[in-house]
Amino acid sequence: MQQFEAFIAAHKPVAPSFHPHYEAALYTMLEAGGKRFRPALLLAVVEAYNPLLLEGAYHAAYAIELLHTYSLVHDDLPAMDDADLRRGHQTLHKRFDEVTAVLVGDALNTYAFEVLSNAPFSDATRVKLVRSLASNGGLNGMVLGQAIDCQFENQPLTLEQVKTLHINKTGKLIASALEMGAIISGQKELERTIYDFGIKVGLLFQIQDDILDVTQSDEEAGKTTNNDEAKNSFVTLLGLEKAVSEADTLASEIEEQLLSFDDNLQGTLSPILNSYINRHR
Amino acid sequence: MQQFEAFIAAHKPVAPSFHPHYEAALYTMLEAGGKRFRPALLLAVVEAYNPLLLEGAYHAAYAIELLHTYSLVHDDLPAMDDADLRRGHQTLHKRFDEVTAVLVGDALNTYAFEVLSNAPFSDATRVKLVRSLASNGGLNGMVLGQAIDCQFENQPLTLEQVKTLHINKTGKLIASALEMGAIISGQKELERTIYDFGIKVGLLFQIQDDILDVTQSDEEAGKTTNNDEAKNSFVTLLGLEKAVSEADTLASEIEEQLLSFDDNLQGTLSPILNSYINRHR
Repeated sequence: MQQFEAFIAAHKPVAPSFHPHYEAALYTMLEAGGKRFRPALLLAVVEAYNPLLLEGAYHAAYAIELLHTYSLVHDDLPAMDDADLRRGHQTLHKRFDEVTAVLVGDALNTYAFEVLSNAPFSDATRVKLVRSLASNGGLNGMVLGQAIDCQFENQPLTLEQVKTLHINKTGKLIASALEMGAIISGQKELERTIYDFGIKVGLLFQIQDDILDVTQSDEEAGKTTNNDEAKNSFVTLLGLEKAVSEADTLASEIEEQLLSFDDNLQGTLSPILNSYINRHR
Repeated sequence: MQQFEAFIAAHKPVAPSFHPHYEAALYTMLEAGGKRFRPALLLAVVEAYNPLLLEGAYHAAYAIELLHTYSLVHDDLPAMDDADLRRGHQTLHKRFDEVTAVLVGDALNTYAFEVLSNAPFSDATRVKLVRSLASNGGLNGMVLGQAIDCQFENQPLTLEQVKTLHINKTGKLIASALEMGAIISGQKELERTIYDFGIKVGLLFQIQDDILDVTQSDEEAGKTTNNDEAKNSFVTLLGLEKAVSEADTLASEIEEQLLSFDDNLQGTLSPILNSYINRHR
């Protein structure tokens, strides 16, 4: 991951110097970091099957981080969550202004696909990567999840609908990260399995976020918490106890499926996932 | 263009029915129409060299219209131009709300690349199309232009800087439309020439917009006009008379270059461009 951070620093987007805020804003968001959870998953799959392709895979990992980062910038906007803190730093619209936050988000979204179109792979692989990121990160994926979340902020949804919400909002991009790892490694038969596994991981991840949102302080979380009280979070819907038990069940299923993977894949995925799987306890 | 409109209607983005606003909003923006200027240019190049590929080219024309449409939705946001009218209809955030406008814009941006990844061409062509759209529509293209425009709203720029602004904000996406037409037609040696031609067309188009913005009423323009007074428009910078003369010069250059193109390309481009080239007079 240190090498990946160096790659990001070396590939930061540039813009003409007479618009300093713009470059600063782009750089800041990537600089500010975060857990790099999605890149780590993608790279873990590639490392398991074809470590020689790791450096090339940084391009795809970067693309997925760009898409994830843009979504955070837009989610924090005054019209959306109106958050002040993100990743332990001021949110972009607080540090700069709303216009910059809208445009930097737009730019990072589009830039993700530019990065993929130039990634050092065959055209067939590049197209599959673009398709995976676009179909999971957009109107039938991450953005849809966010739209459902905002639209039904004050209207109760069923458990199934809340799952649809979070599978789209969080699950599909995590699933895409794993799928992209399989695409790059040429593990065609793994693509679907690891995608479905990723959906499950994403769902667990979101239930855990909902749980931590009510049990952690801002300081611990590095962001504004207790924001989701009125929303269709699993905690609001199920209560804290049942949400924790739902997370426990998912965590067990994920641990079990992890053991069914090839040894090399278990070896690279486990160190990443183990630290998350039980973080709600 | 009628066939292209039917194609758009048949390929409208869909989203689950329990989020009706989202689907309505996506549909509305595409439905509301517009001049379809960029799709027309792309299709004109393909028609000139390889009419059999026209139906496939609809996918690329649709992608560029999706990107253009998202940019209009975000440009109209309260934090940006805060416009009430667009294409003769209420802007999206007026008809729905700001959250919907942000998210629909995000979704259309990403969806453009999904459409390209599934376009009925070779993977090599698909990758070139993604690269062209992403590199011209994002942080070193359209979004950069918008960022410069907003950042320097109340600060005077030099004529060269204003040209950089508009080449990015308007020129590059028009240039990309023409370049994509050349890519699809397999006219490799035309790609650069027609791209540069498109930059010029885009610049003329923007100077004309600036001129019409102060000479037309809202009703004539189908949108809120006189919004750009305080901005770095060519009219503000040069005065109306010099802006018109700059447009005249560009229009002549474009007409001349058009005559240097192959007869078939002249034949398909002229009917589209002729109605624009002198619209500022």
